[in-house]
Amino acid sequence: MTFFRSRWVAAPSGGEELEPAQLAPGFRAAGVACGLKGGGETDVGLLACDDANARSGLLLTRNASAAAAVRVCREQCDARAVRAAVVNSGNANAATGERGYRDALEMRDAASEALGIDQRAVAVAETGAIGVPLPVDDVVRGIGTAARALAGSGAADFAGAIMTTDRAPKLCRVSADGVTLSAQAKGAGMIQPAYATMLCFVQTDGEPSDPRAALSHAVASSFERISVDGQMSTNDTVLLQATGASGRALPEGLLDAVLLQLALEIVADGEGATRVARVEVTQAATQDEAERVARAIANSPLVKTALYGRDPNWGRIAQAAGMALAGEQVEELGPDRIDAGELGTDSGEVEIAVPLGRGDASAHVYFSDLTPEYVELNAEMT
Amino acid sequence: MTFFRSRWVAAPSGGEELEPAQLAPGFRAAGVACGLKGGGETDVGLLACDDANARSGLLLTRNASAAAAVRVCREQCDARAVRAAVVNSGNANAATGERGYRDALEMRDAASEALGIDQRAVAVAETGAIGVPLPVDDVVRGIGTAARALAGSGAADFAGAIMTTDRAPKLCRVSADGVTLSAQAKGAGMIQPAYATMLCFVQTDGEPSDPRAALSHAVASSFERISVDGQMSTNDTVLLQATGASGRALPEGLLDAVLLQLALEIVADGEGATRVARVEVTQAATQDEAERVARAIANSPLVKTALYGRDPNWGRIAQAAGMALAGEQVEELGPDRIDAGELGTDSGEVEIAVPLGRGDASAHVYFSDLTPEYVELNAEMT
Repeated sequence: MTFFRSRWVAAPSGGEELEPAQLAPGFRAAGVACGLKGGGETDVGLLACDDANARSGLLLTRNASAAAAVRVCREQCDARAVRAAVVNSGNANAATGERGYRDALEMRDAASEALGIDQRAVAVAETGAIGVPLPVDDVVRGIGTAARALAGSGAADFAGAIMTTDRAPKLCRVSADGVTLSAQAKGAGMIQPAYATMLCFVQTDGEPSDPRAALSHAVASSFERISVDGQMSTNDTVLLQATGASGRALPEGLLDAVLLQLALEIVADGEGATRVARVEVTQAATQDEAERVARAIANSPLVKTALYGRDPNWGRIAQAAGMALAGEQVEELGPDRIDAGELGTDSGEVEIAVPLGRGDASAHVYFSDLTPEYVELNAEMT
Repeated sequence: MTFFRSRWVAAPSGGEELEPAQLAPGFRAAGVACGLKGGGETDVGLLACDDANARSGLLLTRNASAAAAVRVCREQCDARAVRAAVVNSGNANAATGERGYRDALEMRDAASEALGIDQRAVAVAETGAIGVPLPVDDVVRGIGTAARALAGSGAADFAGAIMTTDRAPKLCRVSADGVTLSAQAKGAGMIQPAYATMLCFVQTDGEPSDPRAALSHAVASSFERISVDGQMSTNDTVLLQATGASGRALPEGLLDAVLLQLALEIVADGEGATRVARVEVTQAATQDEAERVARAIANSPLVKTALYGRDPNWGRIAQAAGMALAGEQVEELGPDRIDAGELGTDSGEVEIAVPLGRGDASAHVYFSDLTPEYVELNAEMT
């Protein structure tokens, strides 16, 4: 097993990891270059399902400055019957006004036409710089090229074409109980979820009873639980497509395990990140309180620099928790309560435990460290 | 004028800047070394008012992990009649349990005894590492030394002794309308206010009608409006002492101008900071919304790295605002709305304007940039 490698992911029982360049049966994909990124890097991805009866779940960012592609998906797409997805990387097409919206529609139309699929069955996703007009003619040309290149073995090309600051492509194919599931994701910065928090595409020949419900459940314990920099993106999109051709139900836990491992890869690949921590807040008075404290710790630049510096600085955890609990009466959070010892080790995956002694609610968040490289990467001129 | 140097501070009319090592009439101070910081650096500050009828205002952090000194002030101090303040720097004495509380009381008792001032008239403040036991005997010895060194010209020594990661001491003395006001502050990291956000001591022979109300008013538009790293400290303390010996009211705007300039110095001295921005959010639907959006922008690591990189990246401002407004219908925040042009200049003080087009409420926040030096400074082992 090389995909399910995090200590925090339980690999699905009876699951087998398969060559990830291949998609689940019934799906084809491609990735080509249209010039958005320059240097010949691929930047247009196309994904299609051959089965006209495929069902889907589609989750989109709640950011009020949502990108054109997200608004097109929200307003024009039949989210329960998505057959194809067209993606560009290098340009988020966000805050680009009416022109941006028209450009996203044009991408959708080009994919619809090239694939002979109804417009309402095409999802659009984009990722990259915000506020830059899209050279849509180049993208449309790329979509035509991608349509001709579609192949069952195109997952790696597709995963490569949706990357931005990612250090490595993120993809897998797994089979369990006669069902195959493949997935491709990207994401490294602007990562704190609400629904999803990056782009992720999942294909299966299994049959979830409700694709949207299955996706929501898996996202709640994966992409919803990670933070690189506390920033909700304008473009987050997660799509699950299921043909049901295997005639079998989606095995319990398979989707959850795949999305959690992909989410952890996104955190580990956080811009400039060198390691990942999991903070678990327990004994909170309410669920909201547990969430608030866990997020305050995960997003504290002081905790994140301590993670980078291998500094078991539980005092900064007490401070961040105390900020989230401002004005409340809390029994002192000392070293006898907070377990932050692993911060001081060289482990790549660090556990932190914070029992608040106030009730029964708990919450956890996975987060990356804050490094000089994060700053340098994000301080470069657009 | 060298103290009131920010473009955002209106110097008080008729005000005159005086040599800042001298305190306002009726006050004495000292700063000595007791070994907390090592290297002979001063780390114990003592401040005393000779007037037994002095009135005061005292504001303390709301952090639920408040330090021992803050709890002593809250529980044991007559906040409206503080005559003396005793401070150590180098050790926050936070999350140090019952022993920490006893140590803070011991500091208070030592100052009370050395000065012949009632225990309830002594405030205690501490700043430095969290969770480290205080070598209180050394501090008590230092308090004795400081009491013998008290002088009307001791403000610079006092300001030096309360510094931690500050690059420079922060102090001033100003006279206006026959009233003199002096102030000393420290702060560079763990800066996002709730009440105050660092240590600040203000002395005057003017007569505010209500010292606490005057202080709250001035803090609301100064220390409450700054952020270095979005982190509320465990130790924030602001003290105003007024003798009224001048027989004149505190001139309108004097305290506000001094605290705003000091607050801006704290932001400019933010750990690793190279420049300061002021984001003004207008046309918000509610005051809470304006605050939320302004804070989201000021605390976004992506906006802060753009500030560092001289990158007029308004797209990151749209994204951060959209995150704060998640789920709301907002007219697109494009470059025609967001004014972020000064981000791309070399100005040390940058203005950003974000009109939301949703109502009449507004809020502003001053914040520093995020630099590799911030990360390196905070990644060092405690």
